[in-house]
Amino acid sequence: MRSVSVVGIGQLPVEKASNLSLRQLGGEAVRRAMEDAGVDRVDALFASNMLADEIQGQKHIAALIAEEANLFGVEALQARAAMAGGAAAIRVAFLSVASGEADLAIAVGVEKMSEGVATPALSKALDAAREVPDGATMISKNAELKRMYLDRYNVPEDGLVNFPVVAHDHARSNPFALYKKAISPGEVQSSRVVHAPLRLFECSPICDGAAAVVLAPSEQARAYNPNPVQILASSVVTDRFCIDDREDPLQLEAAHHSSYDAYRKANINREDIHLFEVHDAFSIMACLQLEAAGFAEPGQGWLLAVEDEIRLQGQIPITTMGGLKARGHPIGATGLYQVCEIVLQLTGRAGENQVRNAEIGMMQSVGGAATTVLTHIFGV
Amino acid sequence: MRSVSVVGIGQLPVEKASNLSLRQLGGEAVRRAMEDAGVDRVDALFASNMLADEIQGQKHIAALIAEEANLFGVEALQARAAMAGGAAAIRVAFLSVASGEADLAIAVGVEKMSEGVATPALSKALDAAREVPDGATMISKNAELKRMYLDRYNVPEDGLVNFPVVAHDHARSNPFALYKKAISPGEVQSSRVVHAPLRLFECSPICDGAAAVVLAPSEQARAYNPNPVQILASSVVTDRFCIDDREDPLQLEAAHHSSYDAYRKANINREDIHLFEVHDAFSIMACLQLEAAGFAEPGQGWLLAVEDEIRLQGQIPITTMGGLKARGHPIGATGLYQVCEIVLQLTGRAGENQVRNAEIGMMQSVGGAATTVLTHIFGV
Repeated sequence: MRSVSVVGIGQLPVEKASNLSLRQLGGEAVRRAMEDAGVDRVDALFASNMLADEIQGQKHIAALIAEEANLFGVEALQARAAMAGGAAAIRVAFLSVASGEADLAIAVGVEKMSEGVATPALSKALDAAREVPDGATMISKNAELKRMYLDRYNVPEDGLVNFPVVAHDHARSNPFALYKKAISPGEVQSSRVVHAPLRLFECSPICDGAAAVVLAPSEQARAYNPNPVQILASSVVTDRFCIDDREDPLQLEAAHHSSYDAYRKANINREDIHLFEVHDAFSIMACLQLEAAGFAEPGQGWLLAVEDEIRLQGQIPITTMGGLKARGHPIGATGLYQVCEIVLQLTGRAGENQVRNAEIGMMQSVGGAATTVLTHIFGV
Repeated sequence: MRSVSVVGIGQLPVEKASNLSLRQLGGEAVRRAMEDAGVDRVDALFASNMLADEIQGQKHIAALIAEEANLFGVEALQARAAMAGGAAAIRVAFLSVASGEADLAIAVGVEKMSEGVATPALSKALDAAREVPDGATMISKNAELKRMYLDRYNVPEDGLVNFPVVAHDHARSNPFALYKKAISPGEVQSSRVVHAPLRLFECSPICDGAAAVVLAPSEQARAYNPNPVQILASSVVTDRFCIDDREDPLQLEAAHHSSYDAYRKANINREDIHLFEVHDAFSIMACLQLEAAGFAEPGQGWLLAVEDEIRLQGQIPITTMGGLKARGHPIGATGLYQVCEIVLQLTGRAGENQVRNAEIGMMQSVGGAATTVLTHIFGV
């Protein structure tokens, strides 16, 4: 299997409502990533999008974006894993280059949530035959997890507020972030209750965005980019579909096994990781991922936030450019934003958000209620 | 790159309305394919489905099917390319095994169209910002192509009737086919006009179905199956998204380039192919594919049908087990049915439908109005 590296990245600013169409958003992200890699052609394009079926009435988005980016005749497919679709596109692009079928592949994610109502479509990541008829939504399932966590571990009601506070601090100097402003713990805890016990400022926002990365064989990477970033591991693991069927819903088995599978593939220890881009769609999910990946014992993840260990100088910096909460969570594009941010960190281009001596970065994307988890580890 | 072979197949009978749920259909196809391969575990599952977002209100189907098949903890992702999604799942499973990331991968397709109205959702394979607002549907675009073809080449109005006639003849002894009965040319030409000039019996039916295939490295294939079938080529090519933007809509560029790319990868000539599973969602599409793949000159494809050259003993047998028209076209599952049928042919298990001395078979799947085309070539 060939080693694979990132040789180009492209991001558009996350916005509440973009002036660009779905097609244009995707095409522009591709163009930016290809310009960064210095290429005008790729062999294959793998696209991610979660909601265009409902919101834009559009399927078949990979071919649409390929055309918009003037990539006539290339391979173009869509990869999906609910909210982890962006990471799925990276996974398939990785397989494409690793296998030798493509010498240059692009993974692109796009979402334009501003044109419709996202919540019902997002709930389709749950079991439509069992959970949805019972009234479940993605928000209600995360609320359930938070309630369970606070109760079992005697965590104060405001125990998770530092997750969004830190994310917002990190977003301030990220030009692509939606919310470039700090928020206080008090503001989080006084924000309106969306779905008890979840408050508004613990939930990632509805927004538009697109991002892309170009992958090439590591052996040829420097021909495109003097500072390539290698993919050290790519892992996908699934759990029992519904959290109610799991032995312990607070133990994210898929996140745990995907993390440790990735450590093994990358031949590293958890301690070697300098930053961790978590899937903080909800604060509780970031907290549970830290525990699943081994950075904290069960019930102790929130303390990493309380003790500022998740900040840039902390033990395990997370959401270093704002995370899903403050950079924004344009669903199908999120995994691609995460890679772009890790690449900026590992190549010393993260500006005020730079994690010092960052050489190994991990990202994790979560589909549904942690049913499908993708972990990628990058290194320089 | 590792050579990849099919070591197990599983099909469910195509039905107008299955008693099984979406989840059960997918799980059962997986179980059958795994039983055929003699395995109780795979490393990865790649799923295809086009319409569950709308019809069942279900996304995230790969993890759902994995759970239903008791494949706890495996990788599970969905691959998409509009109506060619089944072939996309095969493509990604192929990349997964070829790269070395998986030693056993399963591609599964499922569709349950009986629970909703498919036509509007199918139209989302067209450009939702341009074609759909103008009133286009998949049926209207294929009607347009047929009109153009009849007019340009002075083909009689009943010039394409042998495509469905032959498909139905071939379906009669296929236990998995929806329509196991012959139809006459007169019946086709007197069937009701669905969208002028397309008649009902030229269109593939709305139906339910699921099928799956297990892939393994060719080097290890005989450990699972005494008669493995090798994937000689896997190719994906896209065209201009809208047919109105193409220089000549009757020249299916993506089908042409994908076919010839596949011949090159398989290191064969077109003449070496013993059977060709086309994407006969509409008769005109089968006809245009025969031309694009080089089996007939432009404007001559229909004559292959008229002269019975598409039958089992003909120059290029197509739809050998009924094709999309008569076996049925449960969209997301169709590509998987095509592979299963080619495997039966190449291993001498096609019964009354056996193509004599069949050693090389090709399948082609079409997404949208031939916007995305996947070609796979198999050999023994």
